[in-house]
Amino acid sequence: MEFDQRFGLNRHLVLPGPLALDAGLSFAPVEFAYETYGVLNADRSNAILICHALTGDHHVASNHPITGKPGWWTRLVGEGLPIDPARHFIICINVLGSCLGSSGPASTDPATGKPYGMSFPVITIADMVRAQALLLDHLGISSLQAVIGGSMGGMQVLNWTILFPERVRSAVAIATTARHSAQNIAFHEVGRQAIMADPKWRGGEYYGDNDPPAAGLAVARMAAHITYLSEAGLTEKFGRKLQSREAKSFGFDADFQIESYLRHQGISFTDRFDANSYLYITRAMDYYDLAEPFDGVLAKAFAKARNTRFCVISFDTDWLYPTAESRHIVHALNAAGAPVSFVELSSPFGHDAFLLDVPEQNRIIDGFIRAGEQRA
Amino acid sequence: MEFDQRFGLNRHLVLPGPLALDAGLSFAPVEFAYETYGVLNADRSNAILICHALTGDHHVASNHPITGKPGWWTRLVGEGLPIDPARHFIICINVLGSCLGSSGPASTDPATGKPYGMSFPVITIADMVRAQALLLDHLGISSLQAVIGGSMGGMQVLNWTILFPERVRSAVAIATTARHSAQNIAFHEVGRQAIMADPKWRGGEYYGDNDPPAAGLAVARMAAHITYLSEAGLTEKFGRKLQSREAKSFGFDADFQIESYLRHQGISFTDRFDANSYLYITRAMDYYDLAEPFDGVLAKAFAKARNTRFCVISFDTDWLYPTAESRHIVHALNAAGAPVSFVELSSPFGHDAFLLDVPEQNRIIDGFIRAGEQRA
Repeated sequence: MEFDQRFGLNRHLVLPGPLALDAGLSFAPVEFAYETYGVLNADRSNAILICHALTGDHHVASNHPITGKPGWWTRLVGEGLPIDPARHFIICINVLGSCLGSSGPASTDPATGKPYGMSFPVITIADMVRAQALLLDHLGISSLQAVIGGSMGGMQVLNWTILFPERVRSAVAIATTARHSAQNIAFHEVGRQAIMADPKWRGGEYYGDNDPPAAGLAVARMAAHITYLSEAGLTEKFGRKLQSREAKSFGFDADFQIESYLRHQGISFTDRFDANSYLYITRAMDYYDLAEPFDGVLAKAFAKARNTRFCVISFDTDWLYPTAESRHIVHALNAAGAPVSFVELSSPFGHDAFLLDVPEQNRIIDGFIRAGEQRA
Repeated sequence: MEFDQRFGLNRHLVLPGPLALDAGLSFAPVEFAYETYGVLNADRSNAILICHALTGDHHVASNHPITGKPGWWTRLVGEGLPIDPARHFIICINVLGSCLGSSGPASTDPATGKPYGMSFPVITIADMVRAQALLLDHLGISSLQAVIGGSMGGMQVLNWTILFPERVRSAVAIATTARHSAQNIAFHEVGRQAIMADPKWRGGEYYGDNDPPAAGLAVARMAAHITYLSEAGLTEKFGRKLQSREAKSFGFDADFQIESYLRHQGISFTDRFDANSYLYITRAMDYYDLAEPFDGVLAKAFAKARNTRFCVISFDTDWLYPTAESRHIVHALNAAGAPVSFVELSSPFGHDAFLLDVPEQNRIIDGFIRAGEQRA
């Protein structure tokens, strides 16, 4: 296994496809950026797929190539942690539509030799999952010990259990939902309008020069970022504290710490993310409604998933995908007869909690994964 | 009284001032757009001041000059309603910094003959109240039977009772807060950044041609508008319903009703509001913290207001200024020894509820105002 070029960090691969998309189109070829950690065991039974969130990437436990920061889930994935390369073969794939190496609007369209831009097809969360399955086929992984993810990662997890129930033995869906609500769509629409209102967006054809719609993307990120944090958490962290000054300036500089924090979040985001990808991935999330193809009945969506073990985790201060949404998922799983454990964790950090230091989350995931191993 | 040019609809007036501002500046002259309804009684004891919200105006019960729509609070103000021109002398004044006739960044600076733009001084809610007091002096109204307002209007109401406690016999503060929270500031900062990122903003000097930063202002309005509605209300009204189509378009048009609704809210707003005014008024709201000049102790702020009767109303689905904020105000009033009645009303409509058809709100305000009249 050690010398198989398919495995390791910073893998990049083009598969011929084609990939049948929900939009009714066929997409090919399909590029993938992904990473694997650990070694696939002899019976290929220890593979765990980690699904990332909107602006995430495949560097789940390796340094980010642009920011140099540690992987985004090193609190959960690593030596001695619940997802452990010493025990598990871990795969994380950059989602379709993203800009970190998998096919997305910034990728080159082989038909034209130019970036796709807005000619990239509109994709769905299910399309992302189908693309991942294509890659797993190539890697020779027919069955997953677990699929795990938070936020949009959790949407992929749930979609995996519906599209490929026979391939998923355990599913961990964290801080997520079974459908995007009107409020969820509304926040994304603000972000998209901010990007598309930026004259530098130019209908998505901004790749020719080095002048992308950074201002619009920064505003989009700022609006979204508020939804990732709880009101109480913001008050505790920032309150009305002033930034590097003794008194209000009576001007439009960032007087308050929360202002400079948000501005920084917006600006730094534009260094590492593509505006068109932001449009496409938020669109995929807004289109996401697991029950829709099943007459609006979520339990029907999970009808074939009753051999998958589920673990659903929510956070009490998450107002983006509040606990009620997780409870909705759990009720549907109950109705479908799928085994599910559910817990609402307490955290001051809102939606972002799943990425942060929440020891209780680690204990739950560790227990859930080990229980699956004992059963296997 | 009937022939006094100071009274009636669509009044416009310039007072010499000067007005001492919190920024430490002196502002003069001061323009006012305002309306009055009803007749001031012989002992000048029936005056009620209505304070409007961020994007409101003085057309509280008359048709808006640009949109032609009825006044913004005709559910509360009118014949047979709790605030009744047959009984009350009603005054509503466009706030300082706005763009509907009172001095604001779009007004002409007499020193230059050009619009102030960003040379307009940064103002506070207290400055708005001081300006209103200046106008009331001119109108010969030394004492107010009541001051009433929701949202930013409620901030002015509370500030009235702190700055001019002897002039306010009753105060009705609805869907409001004693200070802007980090989350409140964050949403406003997104809006300001959206405006200032629009190249058409041009440092606020866009009045020369007919090409204002409408796209940025529309995005700002969209982001803010989400905070005015409840998640449940959005789900009930829009859910995931599609807009004039049978199926998803797999494109970036407004597929969902919530999207076209929000876009409409954003675009129509730019017809009636000035982007610079939006910057200045949101800044005033973010600077708002009643306790700040009183060592952070809100009860001290209300120390001189104990002869004013208070009525505080919140809405259970208002997540912009949630009930906890009203409770904070009520506790401080209790500690200050001021008489206060407090009610949390149930409504699906979130923050906007105070503007909508909430019969219970009318009954409470009617009862509170009549009780004050009996006591007088």
